[in-house]
Order: sequence, then structure tokens, then C-alpha cells
Amino acid sequence: MRPRVKRLLFVTVLVTAIVALFAAPAFGADTPKPVYQAPASADVGVSLNMLWVILGAVLVIFMQAGFALVETGFCRAKHAAHVVSTNFAIFGLGFVAFFLVGYGLMFGGFSFPGAFGLDSATGGPLVGSGSWVFLWHGGFALTNLHGLKNAAPVAAMFLYMVAFMDTTATIPTGSMAERWKWKSFVVWGLFCGAIYYPLFGAWTWGGGWLSQLGNSAKLGFGYVDFAGSGVVHAVGGAAALAGAMVLGPRIGKFDKDGKPHALSAHNIPMAMLGCFILLFGWFGFNAASTFSATDVRFTVVATNTAIAAAFGATVAMFYVMKRMGKPDPGMMVNGMLAGLVAITAPCAFVQPWAAAVIGTLAAIIIVEAVFFIEKRGIDDPVGAIAVHGIGGIFGVLCVGIFASGEYGAGWNLTTKGAAATASGVTGILYDFDLGGRQLASQAIGALVICTVIFGIALAFFKIQNALTKGGIRPPAEEEEAGLDLAEMGVLAYDNMVLNELDITGAEGVELVASGGPSPDPTIGR
Amino acid sequence: MRPRVKRLLFVTVLVTAIVALFAAPAFGADTPKPVYQAPASADVGVSLNMLWVILGAVLVIFMQAGFALVETGFCRAKHAAHVVSTNFAIFGLGFVAFFLVGYGLMFGGFSFPGAFGLDSATGGPLVGSGSWVFLWHGGFALTNLHGLKNAAPVAAMFLYMVAFMDTTATIPTGSMAERWKWKSFVVWGLFCGAIYYPLFGAWTWGGGWLSQLGNSAKLGFGYVDFAGSGVVHAVGGAAALAGAMVLGPRIGKFDKDGKPHALSAHNIPMAMLGCFILLFGWFGFNAASTFSATDVRFTVVATNTAIAAAFGATVAMFYVMKRMGKPDPGMMVNGMLAGLVAITAPCAFVQPWAAAVIGTLAAIIIVEAVFFIEKRGIDDPVGAIAVHGIGGIFGVLCVGIFASGEYGAGWNLTTKGAAATASGVTGILYDFDLGGRQLASQAIGALVICTVIFGIALAFFKIQNALTKGGIRPPAEEEEAGLDLAEMGVLAYDNMVLNELDITGAEGVELVASGGPSPDPTIGR
Amino acid sequence: MRPRVKRLLFVTVLVTAIVALFAAPAFGADTPKPVYQAPASADVGVSLNMLWVILGAVLVIFMQAGFALVETGFCRAKHAAHVVSTNFAIFGLGFVAFFLVGYGLMFGGFSFPGAFGLDSATGGPLVGSGSWVFLWHGGFALTNLHGLKNAAPVAAMFLYMVAFMDTTATIPTGSMAERWKWKSFVVWGLFCGAIYYPLFGAWTWGGGWLSQLGNSAKLGFGYVDFAGSGVVHAVGGAAALAGAMVLGPRIGKFDKDGKPHALSAHNIPMAMLGCFILLFGWFGFNAASTFSATDVRFTVVATNTAIAAAFGATVAMFYVMKRMGKPDPGMMVNGMLAGLVAITAPCAFVQPWAAAVIGTLAAIIIVEAVFFIEKRGIDDPVGAIAVHGIGGIFGVLCVGIFASGEYGAGWNLTTKGAAATASGVTGILYDFDLGGRQLASQAIGALVICTVIFGIALAFFKIQNALTKGGIRPPAEEEEAGLDLAEMGVLAYDNMVLNELDITGAEGVELVASGGPSPDPTIGR
Repeated sequence: MRPRVKRLLFVTVLVTAIVALFAAPAFGADTPKPVYQAPASADVGVSLNMLWVILGAVLVIFMQAGFALVETGFCRAKHAAHVVSTNFAIFGLGFVAFFLVGYGLMFGGFSFPGAFGLDSATGGPLVGSGSWVFLWHGGFALTNLHGLKNAAPVAAMFLYMVAFMDTTATIPTGSMAERWKWKSFVVWGLFCGAIYYPLFGAWTWGGGWLSQLGNSAKLGFGYVDFAGSGVVHAVGGAAALAGAMVLGPRIGKFDKDGKPHALSAHNIPMAMLGCFILLFGWFGFNAASTFSATDVRFTVVATNTAIAAAFGATVAMFYVMKRMGKPDPGMMVNGMLAGLVAITAPCAFVQPWAAAVIGTLAAIIIVEAVFFIEKRGIDDPVGAIAVHGIGGIFGVLCVGIFASGEYGAGWNLTTKGAAATASGVTGILYDFDLGGRQLASQAIGALVICTVIFGIALAFFKIQNALTKGGIRPPAEEEEAGLDLAEMGVLAYDNMVLNELDITGAEGVELVASGGPSPDPTIGR
Repeated sequence: MRPRVKRLLFVTVLVTAIVALFAAPAFGADTPKPVYQAPASADVGVSLNMLWVILGAVLVIFMQAGFALVETGFCRAKHAAHVVSTNFAIFGLGFVAFFLVGYGLMFGGFSFPGAFGLDSATGGPLVGSGSWVFLWHGGFALTNLHGLKNAAPVAAMFLYMVAFMDTTATIPTGSMAERWKWKSFVVWGLFCGAIYYPLFGAWTWGGGWLSQLGNSAKLGFGYVDFAGSGVVHAVGGAAALAGAMVLGPRIGKFDKDGKPHALSAHNIPMAMLGCFILLFGWFGFNAASTFSATDVRFTVVATNTAIAAAFGATVAMFYVMKRMGKPDPGMMVNGMLAGLVAITAPCAFVQPWAAAVIGTLAAIIIVEAVFFIEKRGIDDPVGAIAVHGIGGIFGVLCVGIFASGEYGAGWNLTTKGAAATASGVTGILYDFDLGGRQLASQAIGALVICTVIFGIALAFFKIQNALTKGGIRPPAEEEEAGLDLAEMGVLAYDNMVLNELDITGAEGVELVASGGPSPDPTIGR
Repeated sequence: MRPRVKRLLFVTVLVTAIVALFAAPAFGADTPKPVYQAPASADVGVSLNMLWVILGAVLVIFMQAGFALVETGFCRAKHAAHVVSTNFAIFGLGFVAFFLVGYGLMFGGFSFPGAFGLDSATGGPLVGSGSWVFLWHGGFALTNLHGLKNAAPVAAMFLYMVAFMDTTATIPTGSMAERWKWKSFVVWGLFCGAIYYPLFGAWTWGGGWLSQLGNSAKLGFGYVDFAGSGVVHAVGGAAALAGAMVLGPRIGKFDKDGKPHALSAHNIPMAMLGCFILLFGWFGFNAASTFSATDVRFTVVATNTAIAAAFGATVAMFYVMKRMGKPDPGMMVNGMLAGLVAITAPCAFVQPWAAAVIGTLAAIIIVEAVFFIEKRGIDDPVGAIAVHGIGGIFGVLCVGIFASGEYGAGWNLTTKGAAATASGVTGILYDFDLGGRQLASQAIGALVICTVIFGIALAFFKIQNALTKGGIRPPAEEEEAGLDLAEMGVLAYDNMVLNELDITGAEGVELVASGGPSPDPTIGR
């Protein structure tokens, strides 16, 4: 009975602590009982805008399932319960950390866009602090909602933003798959939600210095990233690269001569279902980033998103057929994701032809990047570094190249770039001077990700690796047996008979394998 | 050729019967041809509210896929076609019965909330009958839509409500999995849609006596259940418990000393995908239960829902790691579902901190409940009794504990509690007197589920078991071979080689298994 | 290094060509910089309508995942990577072709419904050309959006329409599964998006001669097809039939006496998940086809859709249990899909009782059609010809039978039938004269699909077969080994041990198999 008592004590303390932390305002004697009140009047437009953002948040949250399936499908069956569980658990881990800490750091409590029916008495601009690093904004654990007349807009903003954070948090679970200790992964999830993601986020969407480059340095609108090619994907890709470097390649990925071997995807239909779920959710990611449905630009955003995805998948398929003789299902998936990642920053600013070009270029760049990264001896089981890292940086730069100047004029949302100008966000193809300045802002943002943010991620994983007994990588025998039993205590497919095939040959040749980064780069050259 | 003629006759009679039943009004000579007309004027707010409810219904309908995958993933491969087929078929079975009978009993024909642009001449309150048992409301087979000016609101209301019913209907397919005759299951589906679900539904959402406790007994707002922790989940959980008791445990679950054994989940990624789909759909379940997007409280509802899910999944993971040494993927899933079930009743009435506390407590309660139920010798292959039954009751009580009084003031919707009061729904933490009365209402509702509703379910299964030749459980040899071939005529995975492993050990110990209720309760204590 | 240079050249030329093709307008010296402007005023209703259509498009795009899973689940594991990849790639292939060519042919550039806030100065009717064949409408590659004040409505319209096209394009991947060369499939995808789908589409939704039969021949409203039982499903089913005829049956499907054998589905849960995804997406397919949420008929559409699906699935299950002794999971799936396909044309025009009857009849018709088609020696691995072809034709006719006259009065959208009349679309059950004329229009449309459109598809596949070296079917040894390695270069399930079972017997009888069309038609008669 002793352990039961101990457990009871543990629960009691935990609950008491949480109640003490959050509930205090509720018991305040002189706090008048808060009465909920909708934003001024029955403003249908405001309701519509918040509905769109909530639906967008729900779609982005569903993308977690997409990531889980793509990554798990691309890995091997003996690690499948581990890989899918990291993608499952990260949702909660990142969420809890962002709820308690990260959101307050990135946005503060009273942040929501004007489209949510801003009441100037109680609300505020999207973020007004222009934080260089972190400033206290309040809003930890959403305690600022207590008794707030405008609780609804803040709640909508939070839900949308926490969903984006979780995308960043889940990206490294791909590049670090099949060789990551569960307990080390758990720490990453909390770190990402609390600190890592909000940092670049505060500098850009949080109204910080990168978003102010238009005011401070006359560089166009400052760093502009409509839905997060940089803020979400490249920042996640940077962590994915850092983590994969610290972990080193999987056993068997490279032979002693450094020649890469394909460690095949174990479930192609699973990966493709995951990719379709990501495509589905991406419409919430990009098109609801207008924060508004009364700003009807969201239809163009959605259409551009679909165009880039379609061109990305199709061009990758043709390009791989040409390069290697056969269409590779894994590369089709990564081609579509490449198009989606790259269009994410410029989606609102470009015309459909440009979305097609961006999708086309992204697909080719990502296919080559997969081979390039593998050639450098870095093992990324799903291609996350190429897709999110390289694709994200490319997307950030595309704003400065392809933005047509049609959209963004008169913006006064600090998040989206500070300067309210007569023309919209413009790329170098449309106006050499304006576009050049915009491209410079974008390049600065990209550079910050590649240096500062990547450096932080690398430091985190290196320090964690040094501090953790035995490092953050499981012992070799557990990795060879599969992490499922050792780390999770269960098998992914308890009733299925598995084999140990990792490479399947036909006609005596070693074949290119599916799953982003596995192809032998010497084939087809 | 004889059988063909017989079949033709069968079809002809069937179709004639259906046409005769429903089509009559269409042929009525003196019925003026009905002309469709939108609710008064181009009321955009009304359109928006109905769109939100339809989208909510669509999300809830999609939850059927989530249940199917969670339950199937947690079962064994040799029963997988049977388990997934029950979850598939229940959608139609429950729907048909609710369409023909249940909806009319529960709500009557002209029911829709004021947010749908109530036209007092043709419409009515959400339900005005205050039915103690069932009263004739009309609306069977939606015949009341014929020629109705306000067809749209009724159609929206019906679709949302039928989706909720199907959630209740599908819950016992989990606890009764792997040992339930198909034909017996079919009867359950029809019974649940026609009678079982509408009963408690009429007493609460249908304006019946439980919802009137505020007027009749001065117990706060009467029984309040925003989106159905009780009406949907606990009612389903009660049936799940009754069914599992009548069927008895699966062969091999308990040895002759009563010691439980893990019968492992066959597909962890499938179960986790299912859980993500449930999370996705749950936003429709809870946030669209405002029946309105112009009531912007829906953003707070959505955010509270996500918070409870995140805390539920995360706390369950840490708690199980502490209790048993390893994170259990099945318990992560059930932890998230526990948070979701528990927040469903109070989601609109509590502040974010309370959602976090509710998710935390729900996770711990459900983990312990899984072990407790197993210890009592009840076999629930997926943990449905704990998650939906215990979690649902806990959620019902949470309204009376955590409701902050911010929301609900001035309500005049009978469904949501009859008394239009100056303050909102208030729990005991915020006002001892008001909250105590509310908690009493909630406790009465919970008690009714645990006694009356559970009794009805138990009687149904016992009577069906007695009346069915050989009982409602298939012969042991079919269960041991797997129900797929015997009951469905096909295998779930025709091309896969299966093994008979149900428990996989490492280092000589029998491991805890995934899938809610399988862990050996002696481990980790 | 040579291949690398070649590749670089290839990319450069490709990109230059695309930029040259699309970007030209952007560089035009005297083109004033386009400034985006929302449709006149902050019209919330217009925003709401466009949001509904974008959400509808997103749901329909997600249906691609549903098709992929249903078709792949119904096929055998050795072909699974090939089958799922065709369903994946078709999204991009069809999209690119429709974007570049098909949309311009079908609709022209300035097409969107009045519900999108038509600005008569720059917009136009949904389509005004009444094209007999194809007319130049502009709008290729959406170049018409450049500098357009009303870019948003066109973008919304395009995204919705391209999603529908992809449904048509993916239907033959089912009937032609397991024996189709990848490169031949690729050509189909491009042909369908560019030419095949837009043809019947232009004649109906594009305002062409079939939609004008009301004006030109006094046949009711002309051909009416609310969401595409004919335009999308029957047209796709015609191609599915033509393709299956040209390919011939799979090896082993028929023995030398012509007796059919079941080639079993390899993954029932996968197929059922796919069907749930299709149900989910179908609400976007049908209910958003109002192009409007302020036209609240969408709630009735959604409810009718659900009713037909529920009755389809349930009746098919009972009917198959009666016919063959056991419920067949594959037939449950096809029963639901049958109900959905059949309700797609009449969904807005009928009352709930009629939706129930349509679902009931569709299920029985499709079950019999599966056996009928198999008996004719045509091998359709998933039942696509029956479900989409027969079900689609049945749905088209249902408009002329069951339409209640409640909806459609005063329509002035050319797409939906040209004649603005005092009463709505009326079927023969409600008015013998009016309904007879409507039924004639519907029959003419159905006839055109069965003759002209089927003929075009047959000619396409026959010509392609003749022109392709070795034909469009892979060599027998590749088919027997499974197309995955030979065509895709990877296995679907690299780590799983597969068997070669295609038929599993119990008690010495050959069992009916799941997956639409596989049952041995001699059983149960």
C-alpha cells in the first residue's frame, strides 16, 4: 500500500500547486465577478473572422497527425511505436510549455489582430513591445483571460499560435527518428514550447526587431513571413539539423567508407495519407493567416497554396523519374511538402504563376538537398532538414523575389511588418529598389535562423547530450533491436511478422529507397 | 432464377414500404407546393451560425473514423475487420434509427436554437415539452420539413444531433470488442439510436426534468452539460460497462487465478491517428455547441478543449512513466481522450487554468480507473468504460465545481438550463451557495446515469442475451480463431503474415501492454 | 560531372520557360501596378460565402486521401505502393493540367457565382458562353488574376472546381488498379485535367448546351446536376469502364472457364478509414455547391447527404447479409459510397424521405451492379464502375424523379440551369408534366455520358494502348510479382512479411471477398 500513498501524495501536491498557481485570481475577495461580454455589438464580421481563425487552428492542430504518419511511414517498423509516439506526445508537451511560458514571452496577454474587433480600451495592438529579446507581456497560462471582456479574441489568437508552435516542435522528431531517448525528447518538447520557438517568433510575429527593419533600416516592410516558412519551418529545420548532427547517423546508414545505404520506409500508404493530411491542414496554416475572412485575400492564399503543392509534387515526380528512372513515392511526398513549405511565407503576396514557379523550384531544390545532406554524412530519416530547413529558407527569400505589390498596402498590423506604405509587399522582380530592400530584410531573417537560431539549437542538444548520462542516444543494442520495446514498452505491430529487410533489390541492383533522404546518391548520376 | 425473383420482390416491397411511409405528404392533393424560403431576410449572422453548426456536425461525424481507428488499433489483428466494421456500421445503424424514431422522441420537429433566426410564427423553442419520458413531438423521419419555410434550421439541428448520438452508439463497440456477435451488435445500434440515447437526451437537452431542476428545485441552472460529458459520453460508457459485464472477459484475459494478462494492441500508429482524428473532431463537438458563431464564446470553448487534451495527454504520459517506468502509448491516447471527455460538459463555463486542472485530474483518474476496472474482473479492450464512463461523470461534476460564472447569464434556451439568471453558471469554487446548488443538479444527473440509464442498458443486454440463441457472444472457437472470418467473411489483412503473440517480453519480465486496459496492475506498485 | 551540368541546363530551361510563359504581364512597362481591392464594401455575406466555398474546396481536396485509402485497401499488398501513388500523383497531375488548360476551357477567366459579390464592371455570369465544344474563355494558368480587382472570387471558384476535377481523374485508378503502367497513367492524368473532364463540364456547369435544354427545348431547367453525380462521378465512371476494358482483367481474376475468383482486399481498416474520409469530404462536395452560406439551403443539402450515406451503408449491409449470409465490409463501404454518389445530383432538390429512398435504392443497385459487371468479364478491383458510373447515372435521373420543387425557383445562375422559373426544380413524382420534361433533360445528359463521353475515354485508352510500346499494361511477370518494385522502385511495406493468399477459405468453402467487385457471383444465388 505504500506506493499508493506516495502516489496519492504526489497527485495532491501536483494539483495543489497547479490550483495555487492559476486559481488565485478567482478567489480574490474584491474581484468583481467577471461577466462575459462579446466584442462591441453583434458584429458578424468579427465573429466570422474569429471563426475562420479557430477553424484554421483546428486544421493546423490536425497537421500533427500528418507529421506523425509521414515520419512513421518513412521509418522502419521496429521503431514505429517510438516515432509515432514522439509525434503524438509533442503536441501536449509543446502545448503545455507554450501555454505556461512561451505565449506570454512571444505575444503577451492582450494580443489579437484588428480583425477580431479590437476594443481600444481593453485590447492592444497585435504586439506593441518590439521586444529585442523577451519582455514580460503577462498572459502566462492565459491568466489574463480572467474576467476579461475580450476573452474571445485572445483565446482565438492563442489557439492559432499554439498550433503553429507545435509544428516547429515536431520537425526534429523526423530528422532524429530511430535513435533518440524518450526522456531526452521530452525535454526538447518543453524547451521548444517555452523558449526556442517563441524567440524568433517574438522578433518577427511578436513585433520585434526583425519585423521593424522597415522602420529602423528602411528595408521594405521589414522581415515579412505571412504564415511561417521561416518562423515555423526553417526554425524547426534548424533544430532538426542540429539534433541530427549531435545524434549522428543511424547504425547501418553509412558503411565504413561513408557510402550511404537506404534504410527503407516501412509503410508508403501511411506516409502518403500523412502528406494528404498535411496538405489539408496547410489551408488553415496559410489561408487563415489573414486572421480574417472579411479580408478576402484568403481565397488567393488558399489557391496559391494548392498550386505550389500540386507543382511541387508533380515536378518532383518527373524530376526523380528523369534522374533515377523511377518515380519515388517518398520524393513525391517530399516534393509536395517542399512546395507547401516554400509558399508559406509568400502565399499572400504572389500571383498564381509565381506560386507555380515557387512550387517547381522548391521541388527540385529539395530533391537535390536530400542528396546533398546525405552526402555530407548527415542522416535524416524523413528529409525534414531539406523540406523544412532548406524549403523554409527558400520560401523566406521568395517574398523578396516574387511578391507582386498587390497586397499589404496600408497594413498597420505590427506583426506583418511595421511600415504602412502606399504599395504592398514587393519583390525584386516587380520593383528593383523596393524589392531589393525587401529581399535584404528577408535575407537578414534567413541569416539569423542559420546562425543565431541554429546555434541555440546546437547548443541545446550538445549541452543536453553532455549532461545526460549515456547521452541523448539510446545504446546501440536497443537501436538495433528497435526502440519500441526498450523505450515504449510495446511493439507498434504486435501481431505482424516483420522481416529485417531494409533494402530490396531487383535485377541485382541496389534500388533507391523511399523516404526522403535514403537514396544512394551515386545512382542515376 | 428463383432467388433472383425473390430478391426482386424483397426490394420492391421494401421500397414501396419506405415510399408509402414517407412520401405520403408529397402526394397530398391539397398541399400547396412548398416553396423554400430563407429565414427572414439575408440575415448573415443566422447563416454564419448555421454554417458553424453544420461544420461542427461534419467534424463530429468524422469522429466515427477516430473511434474506429482507436478501437481497432487497440485490438488484435485477428479481430480487426470485425472491430472496424462495427465502428463503421454503427454510423448508419444509429443514424437510421435516430432519423426514423429517436430524433422525434428527443426533440420533436420544430426545434432549433434562437441563433438560427427563430421565426416565432413557424418555429418554437429548442424544446418546450419538458418531457418526463417521451412525448410525441412529431418530426419522425424529418417529415416535418415538408414544405416548411424554416427547413434549414431544423436540418442543421438534426445533423448536429444525429452525429452526437452516433458517438454514444459507438462507445460500447470498444468495451465489447473481440467477442460480440454481429447480429446482436446490429440490434444494439438500432436500439441506441431509437430509444437508449434519446431518453437521457430528452431529460436534459430535450428540455426534460433534469434540465428543469433550476426551476423546479432551485438547483442552479438545473443539470447543465454543455456538449455532453454526461448526455453522450457517460451514457455511452454506462452501456459499455453493461455490455462488457454481460459478455464477460475475452478468452485469455484472466487466468484461473483471476490474474489479468495483457492482450496487446495490434497497431499503435493506427490508434494514435484515431486519437488525433478525435481531437480534431472534438472542436466541432464542443465549440459548435454554442449553436452560434455570433456568440463568440466558441473561441474560449475551443481553447479550453485543446488545453484539457494537451494536459490530459501529457500528464498521463508522465504519470505512467512514474508509475510503470515507461511511457505507454495506449495510456497517452487514453489520457488525451480523458481530458477531452471531462472538459466536454464544462468547456464553456471555465477559465483556461481550470481546463488545465480538469485535464490533469482526468488523466490521473482515468489511468487509475483502467487498473481498477481490470482488477474487478471486467475486460474492456480499449478502456472505453474508464474514458467515457468515469471521465464523463467526472466532467459532469466539474461544471458544479469549476464553472466561473462568466457565461450563461440571461440564457433563455431551455436546453441549456431553464432559469434566466443574472449570473452565469457558477461552481462551488466561485460561490459556495450558488455553486453548491449547481453541483447538486450535476450530481443528480450523474446519479441518474449510474442507476436508471445503466440499468436500462444492463437490462437490454441481459434480455437480448437470453433471447438470442447461443447468446450474444460467439462460440469460443470462433473467438479464438478471430472473429474476422467467422463473422465478416474476410480477414482484415489478407496478405499479411500474423503471429499469435499477445504479449511481448523483454528482459524476462512481462511488460505492460498498450491499449487502455491491458496493463498488469501488479506492476509498478 | 556531365550529368549534373545537363540537369542544371534542364532546370534552367524549364524555369525560364515557365517564367516566360506566365510572368510576362508582370513586367509589362505600361501595366499599372495592380492594387488588390476587396469586393465592394466590407460585405460580410460575400466573405462568408467565399469562406464556405474555400472550406468546401479544402474538404473535397481531402477526399483524395479517401480515394487513395479505399482503393489501396481493396487491392493486394504487393501492388499497394503503386495504387496509393497513382491516387497521390493524380492530385498534382490533374491539377497542373486543369490550371494550365482545363479551367480556361471549362469556365473562362471571369467566372464566379453572384454569391461572391459580383461586380458587374469586371465580373461576369458564372459562364456566359454556352459553349457547344470549347471556346476561348481566357483564364489559362489564372493569368486573368493579374492586377484584377476581383481576384478573390475567381481564386475561390478555381480552387473549388479543380478539386472536383481531381475526383473524376482519380476514379479510373481504382478500376485499372494493379495492372497499369505508371507512365501511361501519367498521360491519363494530364489528359483528364486538360480535356476530358472540362468537356462535359463545359456543356453543363460551364453553361453549355446541356444546361440550356430548358431554354432551347423547354425541358425543365435543362440538365441539372447540383454537385456532380454526372459531371464528376459518371464521367469518371465512364473512363473507369473504358480503361478496365482496354486493360483486361487481372491475372487470376477469371479462370479459363471465365469463372471469377476473389482477389482479396489487403487492408479492411484502411478502406473503411478511406470511406469515412470520403463521407467527411462529401459535405464540402455537396453542401458547398450552393456557392453560398447565405443561401441556407446548404443545411438541407448536408443533411440529405448524410441520410443517403447512412441508408446506403445500412441497406447494403442488410442486403448482402440476406444475399450471402454475412455482412461484407467491402460492400458496406461501397453501399455508403453508392448513397453518396447518387444523392450528389439531387441533394438540394429533394426532401429527407427521398434522400433515404435514394440511398436505399442506390445501395441495392450498386451491389447488383458489382456482380453484373463481374459477370460480364470486366475486372474492377474496387467497384469504381458500379459506384461512380452506375451510381452517378442513377443520381442524375433521380433529379427528374424526386425533386420536390422547393428549391431553384428564380435561379439566374446559368450553371445551374438557365430558365428562371416560378417553381423550383421538379421531378415526375411531384408534377407529371414539369417533372417529365426535367427527367428528359436528365436522361439526355445521362445518354451523352454513356455514349459521347464513354466513347472519348475508350478512344483515348485504345489509342494510347496502340501507341505505347508494349501497351499500357505492364508485362505479366511484373504484375505477378507486384507492381511496387517494378514500377515504383519500392515496396509498400518493406518490413512486413507477406503471404500470397488471395482467397481465404473457412470450412472448405471459398468465401466471398471484400473489395467491391470480388465476390464470386455464384454464391448466395
